[in-house]
Amino acid sequence: MRVEYINPFVEAAFNVLREVLDDEVKRGELYLKSTSQPVLGVAVIVGLTGDVEGRVLFDMKRDTALAIASEMNGEELATMDDLAKATISELANMITGQAVTKLHDLGFKFDLTPPAIITGENMEVSNTGVEALIVPVELKSGKLEINVAVRERT
Amino acid sequence: MRVEYINPFVEAAFNVLREVLDDEVKRGELYLKSTSQPVLGVAVIVGLTGDVEGRVLFDMKRDTALAIASEMNGEELATMDDLAKATISELANMITGQAVTKLHDLGFKFDLTPPAIITGENMEVSNTGVEALIVPVELKSGKLEINVAVRERT
Repeated sequence: MRVEYINPFVEAAFNVLREVLDDEVKRGELYLKSTSQPVLGVAVIVGLTGDVEGRVLFDMKRDTALAIASEMNGEELATMDDLAKATISELANMITGQAVTKLHDLGFKFDLTPPAIITGENMEVSNTGVEALIVPVELKSGKLEINVAVRERT
Repeated sequence: MRVEYINPFVEAAFNVLREVLDDEVKRGELYLKSTSQPVLGVAVIVGLTGDVEGRVLFDMKRDTALAIASEMNGEELATMDDLAKATISELANMITGQAVTKLHDLGFKFDLTPPAIITGENMEVSNTGVEALIVPVELKSGKLEINVAVRERT
């Protein structure tokens, strides 16, 4: 997997998270995984098509998602209701929007889907034949994982 | 939501399911939903970008996914292992490939992501601001839901 595709998503995530959260944002050790990856409970998935295809998943525990959504709204949200989900979707839009601008500037041509939010328990995600790069991000409210699985179009 | 985008996915799903399964394939009552939708346990998500953007989700219980994957492989698969997931991904590829050919013939321009498979319990999916159309399909081995949430690009 070419790192040029990945870095803009990671950088944009750090920029946006630092901007919207009054928080330290620390990068954990990144790792590659070719099989199924566990999903923490709230996953925002954004699809990529074009020269590069696959998906980016922003993944966190429910409590972390609620803490982020609460801070972004300036009010305490207790459940993953429509407002909380819309806020987490908006966070994903901000990050992917910034990443795509960067990637277009670098000459890569591709397009993004709107974010879909999937919640649940004991979740796993897999993309047959596509390796995933996972970048853990440590926030005060818990861990957020940026999980990127993309390939060059054949 | 314009039905022109949806019908090719539904038709392709019926064609492909009838072809790969030795089974009656019955269409249930379709319905629209604007909030979160429950996910049955095994979900294959394919993103769409272009004139139309969003995602198509093929959703079924684990037992149904295993029965389909077993029949497609000609051998009994007992767990959602890599082979079972690859088979369900291939089913999604067959369906979306056929649908896209049809949609391109109709003059719609868009692109698809490779399928991602998400498994888990008590799952829900939502797309902020995009209504979903759900088409239930009754198979001998259980229900499969085709859940399409797309919008015209703004």
